[in-house]
Amino acid sequence: MEKERVVSMIEVVRKEVPLVHHITNYVTVNDCANAVLAIGASPIMADDIKETADITSISKALVLNIGTLNERTISSMIASGKKANELRIPVVFDPVGAGASTFRNETTKRILDNVKVSIIRANLSEMSYIAGIAASTKGVDTAKEDEGNDPVFVAKSVAKMYHCIAAVTGKVDIVSDGERVAGLSNGTALLSKVTGTGCMTSALTGAFAGIVADSLEYDYFHAACAGISSMSIAGELAKRQFAESGTGSFHVGIIDYLSKMDQELMKEYINMEIK
Amino acid sequence: MEKERVVSMIEVVRKEVPLVHHITNYVTVNDCANAVLAIGASPIMADDIKETADITSISKALVLNIGTLNERTISSMIASGKKANELRIPVVFDPVGAGASTFRNETTKRILDNVKVSIIRANLSEMSYIAGIAASTKGVDTAKEDEGNDPVFVAKSVAKMYHCIAAVTGKVDIVSDGERVAGLSNGTALLSKVTGTGCMTSALTGAFAGIVADSLEYDYFHAACAGISSMSIAGELAKRQFAESGTGSFHVGIIDYLSKMDQELMKEYINMEIK
Amino acid sequence: MEKERVVSMIEVVRKEVPLVHHITNYVTVNDCANAVLAIGASPIMADDIKETADITSISKALVLNIGTLNERTISSMIASGKKANELRIPVVFDPVGAGASTFRNETTKRILDNVKVSIIRANLSEMSYIAGIAASTKGVDTAKEDEGNDPVFVAKSVAKMYHCIAAVTGKVDIVSDGERVAGLSNGTALLSKVTGTGCMTSALTGAFAGIVADSLEYDYFHAACAGISSMSIAGELAKRQFAESGTGSFHVGIIDYLSKMDQELMKEYINMEIK
Repeated sequence: MEKERVVSMIEVVRKEVPLVHHITNYVTVNDCANAVLAIGASPIMADDIKETADITSISKALVLNIGTLNERTISSMIASGKKANELRIPVVFDPVGAGASTFRNETTKRILDNVKVSIIRANLSEMSYIAGIAASTKGVDTAKEDEGNDPVFVAKSVAKMYHCIAAVTGKVDIVSDGERVAGLSNGTALLSKVTGTGCMTSALTGAFAGIVADSLEYDYFHAACAGISSMSIAGELAKRQFAESGTGSFHVGIIDYLSKMDQELMKEYINMEIK
Repeated sequence: MEKERVVSMIEVVRKEVPLVHHITNYVTVNDCANAVLAIGASPIMADDIKETADITSISKALVLNIGTLNERTISSMIASGKKANELRIPVVFDPVGAGASTFRNETTKRILDNVKVSIIRANLSEMSYIAGIAASTKGVDTAKEDEGNDPVFVAKSVAKMYHCIAAVTGKVDIVSDGERVAGLSNGTALLSKVTGTGCMTSALTGAFAGIVADSLEYDYFHAACAGISSMSIAGELAKRQFAESGTGSFHVGIIDYLSKMDQELMKEYINMEIK
Repeated sequence: MEKERVVSMIEVVRKEVPLVHHITNYVTVNDCANAVLAIGASPIMADDIKETADITSISKALVLNIGTLNERTISSMIASGKKANELRIPVVFDPVGAGASTFRNETTKRILDNVKVSIIRANLSEMSYIAGIAASTKGVDTAKEDEGNDPVFVAKSVAKMYHCIAAVTGKVDIVSDGERVAGLSNGTALLSKVTGTGCMTSALTGAFAGIVADSLEYDYFHAACAGISSMSIAGELAKRQFAESGTGSFHVGIIDYLSKMDQELMKEYINMEIK
């Protein structure tokens, strides 16, 4: 039942073309925009405090990504986040590198203290930091699952703590609202060889979150599962075609398969289990 | 006659390799640089107030794009624009998202009040905003032609108002200097599925504008037509080869065909009509 | 002997996966991150003064690139550079556009006055500026070898002046520590048709520099040669496969071949001569 919902969302995204506002890093921003276009939504990137809340107010979802944060954009993130909360627009938060520097830790806390987020999408070390569990972060693209940490426990903890969906991506991706727990087993290790696949996953999650408010059928748990699965499945299909060519072609292939993603492909490939 | 001129410009660009200074957004900047290289010109991106006018003064054209504007770069745009005016270097202005926020509206006005632009390249909703005609903007990549608006009327109005070339891209692209009107009917809807194709069109227009000052044959009307046509034709050819692969491959294909663009391809494919 | 060392470094990079901190420009940052991932290292981009030294301190190398410099990031470059010096972490410096504006010249001087760099990677006009030799810069992607300048002389001068490795890329790339001089003759002119191939070369050099400190076998002379050669060889192989497709495909091909680069490919193709 949950799976059918996750699978069917993409057709709604392609029909409604939600506008998704991103305040994100300059490393992967082009890929995020192209991923959102490929999945059928419409991206807008704007980060100046003088317009950021205005842009949020015409959008269907807001994605906050702290990959290359600075004082200027943090204020914008909070202003946009508050506007989103006011208008009941969902906020997807990607705490890139939380745990790696005091500044990132403080910013993560500042955002969570000021903005009610709908979905947090992070790797295990980042989510563990949020859960208050000691974790070490090694780089942005190489964070590995700390064996001492259990992603299900971490996801449930954060979901309860912040009354949100917590999505921990890793070998098996875990999505939880504190009660329900989904395990998603698509994807390939090759995704870690292209920068921004995590950022793109958060961006896609924003696209799916953008259709929830106008729907009776979907909630943010489904949106997080759909965002993650669309990326993982695109990665699997791209790997099959391009692994031997190299990571440049694989990168292009991810966008290719996102642009071809539909209900049939989602249904055929999704490996989702409610735990 | 106009068409022959438009078609022949590319050989001059490839021969003279004009340096094109961009103050542009961080979403599509890499594509803009690669598009300008592919067409045979040389891009330089610099946006700090401490050097921006210096960089403009060694360039053959200046491209101002407000896709991700902020206070810091607006000052740089105006300083560079004034320097360009002083040295009679052409300015191409891309008012991305004009109409979408008060900040973008004010910035658009501030640039037009302070800088004499040679070419404005925009979609219909953005150009309509400039024309003072009420228009709604939905996102950056999805703005559709408002049926209530006539692009020929809008282009002519803006061209007369600012004594510049106004280029309205859409299903049919309209270029006007207030008297002459060209309709360009190349391109494909698939171009709207890759972020930055509008920005790249403005960047290419800058490359073509960069050879006008040293020429007796060309003016900025031709430069705008050549910038738009080169992109549209590259899009058509890339679509033919890559539409089935997906939008990632199509994106790569656009740059491929720009790099192969020459007088023969332009002549064979250009669909240009003087109205 | 030197050549064998250069050739063997890549296996160590792939094994140790050094974290490489970049403070770099927003034009080519995505390519730099993907190039570093492709060669087997791990990139992290962070430029805010509140965290930049913290991020440097967990990294194995620091790459400073002034391609789109501004006051905010210059301070961060110096703070990170000083932290790197304190912890004996190597600093690779790419003085993009040195010579092209007073601001770039002053910034180049300011960085060299405040930070002990291990490797400077530049084109001839940029390195000549550093050497105090008059040179003109035309754009970022088109700087040609000034016939009046001798890259070997320039590289040796800069290496002695700053007690570092000076790597001058051009038709033949010259790497020197002031005594040893290597000439590297791989690569293709097509690399100048893709923006950021110089930046990527510096980023790759950072990846190789990141394994030197823990090694008895390698020094920064080898790291510079390996960074340059891996890029040049990837360019040659990509050209062979993609030159006819166009520069978009060639760009993707560069990353493809970087991701496939290994000791065997390096050994088969490297064209390195100790002068």
